[in-house]
Amino acid sequence: MIKANDPTRISWVQYDGSTDFPVQNIPFGIMIAGGKHKVCSRIGDYIIDIAALYELGFLNGIDLGLQHLENEFLNDFISLGKEVTNAVRDRLADVLDDKNTLGAKAKSEKFLRPALETVMSMPVRIGDYTDFYSSREHAFNVGCMFRDPKNALMPNWLHLPVGYHGRASSIILSDCDVKRPKGQQLPPDSEVPVFGPCKQLDFELEVAFIVGKSNHLGETISTANAEEYIFGLCLFNDWSARDIQRWEYVPLGPFLSKNFASTLSPWIVTLEALEPFKTVGPVQETKILPYLEYSGEKNYDIHLQVSIKPEGSDPVVVSRSNFKYMYWNMVQQVAHHTVNGCNLRVGDLCASGTISGPTPDSYGSMLEIAWKGTKPVNMNDGTTRSFILDGDEVALTGYAEKNGVRIGFGDCKAKILPAD
Amino acid sequence: MIKANDPTRISWVQYDGSTDFPVQNIPFGIMIAGGKHKVCSRIGDYIIDIAALYELGFLNGIDLGLQHLENEFLNDFISLGKEVTNAVRDRLADVLDDKNTLGAKAKSEKFLRPALETVMSMPVRIGDYTDFYSSREHAFNVGCMFRDPKNALMPNWLHLPVGYHGRASSIILSDCDVKRPKGQQLPPDSEVPVFGPCKQLDFELEVAFIVGKSNHLGETISTANAEEYIFGLCLFNDWSARDIQRWEYVPLGPFLSKNFASTLSPWIVTLEALEPFKTVGPVQETKILPYLEYSGEKNYDIHLQVSIKPEGSDPVVVSRSNFKYMYWNMVQQVAHHTVNGCNLRVGDLCASGTISGPTPDSYGSMLEIAWKGTKPVNMNDGTTRSFILDGDEVALTGYAEKNGVRIGFGDCKAKILPAD
Repeated sequence: MIKANDPTRISWVQYDGSTDFPVQNIPFGIMIAGGKHKVCSRIGDYIIDIAALYELGFLNGIDLGLQHLENEFLNDFISLGKEVTNAVRDRLADVLDDKNTLGAKAKSEKFLRPALETVMSMPVRIGDYTDFYSSREHAFNVGCMFRDPKNALMPNWLHLPVGYHGRASSIILSDCDVKRPKGQQLPPDSEVPVFGPCKQLDFELEVAFIVGKSNHLGETISTANAEEYIFGLCLFNDWSARDIQRWEYVPLGPFLSKNFASTLSPWIVTLEALEPFKTVGPVQETKILPYLEYSGEKNYDIHLQVSIKPEGSDPVVVSRSNFKYMYWNMVQQVAHHTVNGCNLRVGDLCASGTISGPTPDSYGSMLEIAWKGTKPVNMNDGTTRSFILDGDEVALTGYAEKNGVRIGFGDCKAKILPAD
Repeated sequence: MIKANDPTRISWVQYDGSTDFPVQNIPFGIMIAGGKHKVCSRIGDYIIDIAALYELGFLNGIDLGLQHLENEFLNDFISLGKEVTNAVRDRLADVLDDKNTLGAKAKSEKFLRPALETVMSMPVRIGDYTDFYSSREHAFNVGCMFRDPKNALMPNWLHLPVGYHGRASSIILSDCDVKRPKGQQLPPDSEVPVFGPCKQLDFELEVAFIVGKSNHLGETISTANAEEYIFGLCLFNDWSARDIQRWEYVPLGPFLSKNFASTLSPWIVTLEALEPFKTVGPVQETKILPYLEYSGEKNYDIHLQVSIKPEGSDPVVVSRSNFKYMYWNMVQQVAHHTVNGCNLRVGDLCASGTISGPTPDSYGSMLEIAWKGTKPVNMNDGTTRSFILDGDEVALTGYAEKNGVRIGFGDCKAKILPAD
């Protein structure tokens, strides 16, 4: 077992059982402190300054340098390889352990700082962003609405994890406001588009993985080796302008309907921290090609939730889904992405696509939840939502739980500002 | 007039009239010399070491430093802004001028080196790569073959410059070999895909522009201001696996059929060097929305050509097209790309999409030239081509010509290696 995951471990840092960040999590992120970007982690309500721990000597014997930790992004740290990054994670768990005799507790004010007073920054420099479309329920639901129920799922869908390239430049951190985009829309019964603010602004509940190892152009990655290439997971809201999307997306896919913003959670939860939560995925009923076959449990039981908070009102949970619903899992996504020799680079982001479950309360987008506006959702202030309105704050949260250990992701949230 | 463009200017460097790189061109690129990446330019058969010119004092008075010129990529140099980069271009033209009294000729061995002995490198770190689909003839031809002639052009096509995101990691420099990709294909009359090497490997004749100025997320760029954001142009071959594409591309667009490799020419020809070759574009017959309106001539008369050279045989020209055929021009592409607030970053690459002219000899892909395999093209060795075979070298070339001045792009070429 990976040491840091030990469920019996207790930390000298106080936190209650509802925290996303017990000593068994130890995610990685980037904070801004003293005018510097620094690699950090988190426990309970505290940020762990890993560069400070290094300077205090607590990382002695691990093969890394200060330049990997005082860095604008995690890419250089991740590039050290899992042997090093997992050693850092294990060491942090030891340093924070209630039985620790390393003297860390006495020096805690040198490396722990309140999370509430700390500014986080984008964890990785994202080279390329790929969005998959791997939830069968989501693909079916959208197919029903954008096309028709008879050919909702395209003929290729059960044979390969459909994916497409998204925009890396407009991926922003949780808590950054998002301006409602403008664009072309085709009004009902019109053949000529109009221009204006999007009227069907939507979220997409997604989980993204960060690539942890590069392959060379021309090299493939098998499903058996794929986990080596996955550093960890984040929550991801791939904001979507449905009215713009419907008009622009044929034949080459979504463009302006998606690339105005996507919101990323600041913490990368390592694949190793999520190891205890592996589970089986949906049965893949169609015979798949050998390069997509895999063995073992490759889905993850991660509870996901979306809430909408209208301005001046309380949040309402509009979706409860689970990452385990993914029809195509991450190792299949990696194998498919590279089967043509495409090169992944450390820091690339691959998102799941909207994660919808089998029932309406588990759908991962407003398009599906309110079924194209026919089933609006009630807010606490008496208003209803078919799509997202100006002033709404949308928050994604997620956690896995087992044997009394809860591993969470923190918030992935953003507020919508009106169009100019 | 921009000084460097003066058609009467003659250089003390000898070259003949067929060169792509007269003193009126002065493109920018990155070379590897003495173990360093350096910003360079080209005249005739010589590379100009701009960092060496700087150290010799020939760039005195221009607001830049050696760190912009001894650099892995042009991004930092480009970020200095057009005022600086155009001043460098003008100064280089002066230094190379036959009437030059700056003493450069006597020191030429310090900053000129034979192009044949110089290794070039990727000119820019590409953040995001967008591919447009802006040739009406290409969109119509592909629509005829992938769908049907009755709805070949999608309803949105005449209202907006359709575009989608491509993969930045697999954009490689001219002269790098490309391995034939493998992938899923649907055999005729089958409902189940097979896996294997692509059988319909194709080139796409494109021109790409490099973004020269960043906009902030949420900011739009008007057609009137768009040229400020375009640094210069390159040739671009967006390799495409047609059989993989046809099966995978619905509903989210091409993915593995395109992201195994795209070939970029090493020289960025500045928008300023191409100013004399502006021309009118095709009439846009449909009433377009105000944000896409523009004034002035925004197309460019650039002759484009594609040749195929089978292994051990001579090249055969298979296409003669022109950049002026673009239905949607670059300023419209920039305005559309940012109308939703999407942020462009210095070094981003935006490609035109395949540039097909009105006649079959001007089509920009084998899919169109050989019309889905029904009109194979003869090679000099007695073989024919419907698509690209292993061992073939495909070369894109391009130039603009007026008043005795010819501004070219150099080669954009690559050889196809067999699949593993």
